[in-house]
Amino acid sequence: MTGGLLPGNLPGTKDFYGLELKKLKYILNVISGVFEEFGYNELKTPSIESLELIKNAYGQESSKLIYKILNSGINYNDINIDELKDSGDSLLSKKFLLYDLTLPLVRYVYNNRNNIVFPFKRYQIQTVWRADRPQKGRSREFFQCDADIVGSNSLLCELEQIQIISTVFNRLSVKNYNIRINSRKIINDLAVLLGVNDRFNEFCIILDKIDKIGVDGVIKEMEIIIKNNSKIEILKKILNSRFDIEFFKSEFKSASISCENILELESFLNFLRSAVKEFNHIIVDFSLVRGLNYYTGIIFEVVSTDINLGSIAGGGRYEYFSNHFGIKELSGVGVSFGINRIYTLLDELKIFNISGNDKKRILISNNNNKFDFNIIEQLRKKYIVEYYYSKSDDLKKQLKYANKLLFDYVLINNEIKDLNTGSQISVVDFLNSL
Amino acid sequence: MTGGLLPGNLPGTKDFYGLELKKLKYILNVISGVFEEFGYNELKTPSIESLELIKNAYGQESSKLIYKILNSGINYNDINIDELKDSGDSLLSKKFLLYDLTLPLVRYVYNNRNNIVFPFKRYQIQTVWRADRPQKGRSREFFQCDADIVGSNSLLCELEQIQIISTVFNRLSVKNYNIRINSRKIINDLAVLLGVNDRFNEFCIILDKIDKIGVDGVIKEMEIIIKNNSKIEILKKILNSRFDIEFFKSEFKSASISCENILELESFLNFLRSAVKEFNHIIVDFSLVRGLNYYTGIIFEVVSTDINLGSIAGGGRYEYFSNHFGIKELSGVGVSFGINRIYTLLDELKIFNISGNDKKRILISNNNNKFDFNIIEQLRKKYIVEYYYSKSDDLKKQLKYANKLLFDYVLINNEIKDLNTGSQISVVDFLNSL
Repeated sequence: MTGGLLPGNLPGTKDFYGLELKKLKYILNVISGVFEEFGYNELKTPSIESLELIKNAYGQESSKLIYKILNSGINYNDINIDELKDSGDSLLSKKFLLYDLTLPLVRYVYNNRNNIVFPFKRYQIQTVWRADRPQKGRSREFFQCDADIVGSNSLLCELEQIQIISTVFNRLSVKNYNIRINSRKIINDLAVLLGVNDRFNEFCIILDKIDKIGVDGVIKEMEIIIKNNSKIEILKKILNSRFDIEFFKSEFKSASISCENILELESFLNFLRSAVKEFNHIIVDFSLVRGLNYYTGIIFEVVSTDINLGSIAGGGRYEYFSNHFGIKELSGVGVSFGINRIYTLLDELKIFNISGNDKKRILISNNNNKFDFNIIEQLRKKYIVEYYYSKSDDLKKQLKYANKLLFDYVLINNEIKDLNTGSQISVVDFLNSL
Repeated sequence: MTGGLLPGNLPGTKDFYGLELKKLKYILNVISGVFEEFGYNELKTPSIESLELIKNAYGQESSKLIYKILNSGINYNDINIDELKDSGDSLLSKKFLLYDLTLPLVRYVYNNRNNIVFPFKRYQIQTVWRADRPQKGRSREFFQCDADIVGSNSLLCELEQIQIISTVFNRLSVKNYNIRINSRKIINDLAVLLGVNDRFNEFCIILDKIDKIGVDGVIKEMEIIIKNNSKIEILKKILNSRFDIEFFKSEFKSASISCENILELESFLNFLRSAVKEFNHIIVDFSLVRGLNYYTGIIFEVVSTDINLGSIAGGGRYEYFSNHFGIKELSGVGVSFGINRIYTLLDELKIFNISGNDKKRILISNNNNKFDFNIIEQLRKKYIVEYYYSKSDDLKKQLKYANKLLFDYVLINNEIKDLNTGSQISVVDFLNSL
């Protein structure tokens, strides 16, 4: 083959075919199956949305990562360069490609608020796009996979989503993982305790790095915003005891900070103990932050203890609807599965369970285009049936092709040849034995 | 609920939820199931591709409909207005959103040409985007659904794809439809016969309108490019006998044009007669064109005879790989299903067959958050099980909710209440009867 040189995939994007696509679909099917068993209905929203929707939605960093769509039919002779310099992208673009699945959920709920019966439970598995620097494990186009409950304050929502996590990883045969749990309210308390509530964002950003830079790294960076030595000493103790509820309670008490939020978390854990069989996977981690401005209540995050991949699932309670969009009294709880990382995990642990479902394959050999199409139709009821297209190749060449492409059987005239055993029986007998 | 006004969906895009999404998935599952039975493997390619790929690919009209993605991080202070006026979009954009599924197929085949065993059979069901004027039945974001065989000259490919069409519509319970068949080679012959081979594109464009403007309309427009009255008389006869092979043969003979292509089509029809049970759906239509520059051999198109929706499926043989990309000796045959139109057809005929698969639904009533999670887990093995989240509502309110949301059962303490019959049995008996 010669001729025109075509480009490859764009960096950060890839093709899925064959086994790789089967593995991907296996994960998506397991997760969507669990979502449905818990009563979530699927929602599919468009991949393109109006840029108007973005107002208030994303911080500056996220906004940079949004792919915008160039307006169609721009007349460049009419472009005023000063206006362009002032307006930037907004003169040239009115639409963007989905960046996450929360924003379309907000829009959907808002647009349909008069018909929805709350609490509203939906799941959504769709492609999102991010103008990120492509690097190992980071794509520009990938699946997000979210299930949310909107409009209930009950802790039963959080419980249900942790049941979902446990069910999903059980079904995917993932045995070694932790579900870390914390409450954003306790992060707020901690900031008060350490006297950094006026630098809360910085506090969260540094704490959020603990998996990457360790306790010592966190303390070093905290010293920039916490000038008081005794507070740094408290921070050290806290970080080293970050899995210990009793320690936190006594620490809070001695600092005269209410233990209300710790007690709420503790009672939630007791609730979970009765509901989740593999409760031993669940640990409290008071250093868990999960980003900046999104979550407001209980948060949770799943990490593999076999392979260090970062979070493979996570979620929590948020007040995004009211805090960012002024849509009142709609508290949300969401869980999100990291499809790419789960793929990597199952692949490296070699625990993909995708065999057994595949139909066997029959090649119909070609003798000058003479076929018994009735027989072929009957075979196709149970098998994948393919023609050998070329009518002029000899049988030897056709069998070679069948072996190379791993067919199970070949139909030759009125006989079925089993390529694994070499045995041959009449197709009538073969059909009768189905 | 009050507060921030959010925009709705962009024109030409829509949300899918509930029954509508189930119907959509039903169609996609039937079609992909048939593709797989015929040995096509699924391919999923990225939704964004490099604009380099577009060279040679689309005509001017199509190019206008392509959504381009604005480059990230443009520094508008560095933009030279003259360069912008000269270069237009190409200064601001390097990527585009998929416009069809053929171009990514071409790229995939080219990029993987050293590993692919030809003939290569793939199917692909993905979203594509078109910057079209939104109007009834025309979307800016919609599914395309293609199956192609690349690298075989055998007419068995065309036959297989017509078998696929027949199988799909049979399985969708669509009874009244025609599969129109023609050959682009005969269209070429016709142009010679009518003396318009030097205005071939115009000839095709006018002929292609026959469903919209009728025979008289076509003749009227043809009079602009065919000045010879006797040729117009021949055209009239031809259009009125466009389903009649014998007539065409005698007409070709009397004009001393070879009947080779008609005979090829005729022999293909005889081949089809033995292969397709519902052969009565198949008609020859010598006026079938299917667009301008794509197809080169046998073409086919499906129309409902119940409701006039235009083509609901179609395809044919093309030499796109060699003619447009210089990738030699890769003849292709493709079939494409019009998902939106098939949806409309099944909906209007009320023949969606989506019942029977749904699991029944149980609401777990809430008595101050006291649950027997073991029982709930067992119920979830066979049912969709949802919690009533609020622990403070009385049972009456909970039952009202269950009825409103059409639950089948409610678990109340240790009893299962059947909402359809009103009967109530112990959950242990209920589980034993599963």
